[in-house]
Amino acid sequence: MNWAVLDILGAIAFGISGTLVASEENYDLLGAYILGFTTAFGGGTIRNLLLGASVEGIWIQRNLFIIAFVSITFAFFFPHKWKSHFTHTAVFFDAVGLAAFAIQGANYAVSIDAPLVAVVTAAVLTGSGGGMVRDLLTGRKPMIFYSEIYALWAAFAGLFIGLGWISGPYVVTVLFVALIALRVASVYYKWTLPHYFSAQKRIGFDPEE
Amino acid sequence: MNWAVLDILGAIAFGISGTLVASEENYDLLGAYILGFTTAFGGGTIRNLLLGASVEGIWIQRNLFIIAFVSITFAFFFPHKWKSHFTHTAVFFDAVGLAAFAIQGANYAVSIDAPLVAVVTAAVLTGSGGGMVRDLLTGRKPMIFYSEIYALWAAFAGLFIGLGWISGPYVVTVLFVALIALRVASVYYKWTLPHYFSAQKRIGFDPEE
Amino acid sequence: MNWAVLDILGAIAFGISGTLVASEENYDLLGAYILGFTTAFGGGTIRNLLLGASVEGIWIQRNLFIIAFVSITFAFFFPHKWKSHFTHTAVFFDAVGLAAFAIQGANYAVSIDAPLVAVVTAAVLTGSGGGMVRDLLTGRKPMIFYSEIYALWAAFAGLFIGLGWISGPYVVTVLFVALIALRVASVYYKWTLPHYFSAQKRIGFDPEE
Repeated sequence: MNWAVLDILGAIAFGISGTLVASEENYDLLGAYILGFTTAFGGGTIRNLLLGASVEGIWIQRNLFIIAFVSITFAFFFPHKWKSHFTHTAVFFDAVGLAAFAIQGANYAVSIDAPLVAVVTAAVLTGSGGGMVRDLLTGRKPMIFYSEIYALWAAFAGLFIGLGWISGPYVVTVLFVALIALRVASVYYKWTLPHYFSAQKRIGFDPEE
Repeated sequence: MNWAVLDILGAIAFGISGTLVASEENYDLLGAYILGFTTAFGGGTIRNLLLGASVEGIWIQRNLFIIAFVSITFAFFFPHKWKSHFTHTAVFFDAVGLAAFAIQGANYAVSIDAPLVAVVTAAVLTGSGGGMVRDLLTGRKPMIFYSEIYALWAAFAGLFIGLGWISGPYVVTVLFVALIALRVASVYYKWTLPHYFSAQKRIGFDPEE
Repeated sequence: MNWAVLDILGAIAFGISGTLVASEENYDLLGAYILGFTTAFGGGTIRNLLLGASVEGIWIQRNLFIIAFVSITFAFFFPHKWKSHFTHTAVFFDAVGLAAFAIQGANYAVSIDAPLVAVVTAAVLTGSGGGMVRDLLTGRKPMIFYSEIYALWAAFAGLFIGLGWISGPYVVTVLFVALIALRVASVYYKWTLPHYFSAQKRIGFDPEE
């Protein structure tokens, strides 16, 4: 489980995810490519911009572009009837992308000697940034804000890697699988963080009274 | 048809386009300036950020700022009754901006030796990025995603320039006029790319069955 | 009234502002942190990106992060019943953030020898950019576009500082207090700039006739 594999898994998973959203919005083929590429490469671009790292590197990932292109094309022409059975597959792919890019983003931040808070932010931005841009461009509320636990798993990945607890390919693979499992379980069991109203209740002020 | 002329035409066209949207949303005068400037200069700014090129250059285009300022002011105070007859003029101006900035963006990317995929992306981003920010800031779905063929013409400009097929002022002028004509024709004849549902039908799965 | 104080006041005020919006949208705790930090640090980040200034500096503001973190946590768990009495306090805090960051943004732009138009833009972006990102991420129309006079006060701060009329801690403090007072007065007395329809009326074309 090295960088190249994480990059490839993330590009495929988020390319498909962007295309599925484009299909739901009935975008045309070029719209699907734009949304798919934005979802696949948006997180890393935002991370590099905000960390002050070079963004030129994004344009020389020739093989990743081809992989994303093929994934998007496949997902766009994949029969609708089969897609509708694949909602859980979509959640799974999105979790794969989140896990792959969160780890990759944290590794990248560590490699440029960024401070811990930047490592955690890089993990969150790289893991969820592409999906956030995807949701903004389609006028949806970013998943990071309302759904089951999402960004927290990316933040944990950043924290563990930033603190140096995770190193070596085997431990990274364990983290990768654990992140996917935790994200899928969050959706399946509807895990949530404290919300505003529950926060109020917990300290004794029920706003609905 | 050199860089300076393309810059001026694009700034005027997109400044007016942003102001027309601001008028429709009943924004105040400062809102019209912000939206007009964002539309006129947003595409080039996003392109420079994503290509890793310098963005300081944006702030020293003194004459372009003045031109955009005058265009916005004029469009804001232009009588509503006359504007409503000018819907087709608005499409025309937007097409002028798209063509001017797509060519200019591609030229810019070539001038900094960016790879072909970055040249095409620069053409699309510079041509349509300002309008995309305009639509996001006003809560509209970006035109690039739902309307008649839009970004494809910018992508073609990027491809032709990136492959070196277009050079010299005369050929560039022909491309510029062709892009405007193709975009206007797209709206007039309602040309579209394959959409999701038609893609399904073509391969034999009609989701509406 | 030096840079450090302006930074702290702005981070507290915008952190609280982001959390209040997150509460209204019933976001979870992590959503409140993301929105609070985005509002508190988004304006400065956008300014640095657009001015071509270094963004690495954002990640080493350790004390500001802690201050924002505490402010957001406090605002999130602050009882709802009390919050609803504090609408005017929210406007006040937002005005404090706008004033603090507009002055700080203009000072920053002057310190890197940016031209006047960039100083004014830096004041507007730093003062209102965080709130703009906050509104985009929650699907709201940016306050800068529809409300009582907002960005104009930031623009004035940029103009005065860019022209060198404001220098020395005492004069800056006067400007700071004046900006807050003007923004609060704008809301209280519903001051607005000319809108599209009034612009039409003024020159004799009433579109509602």
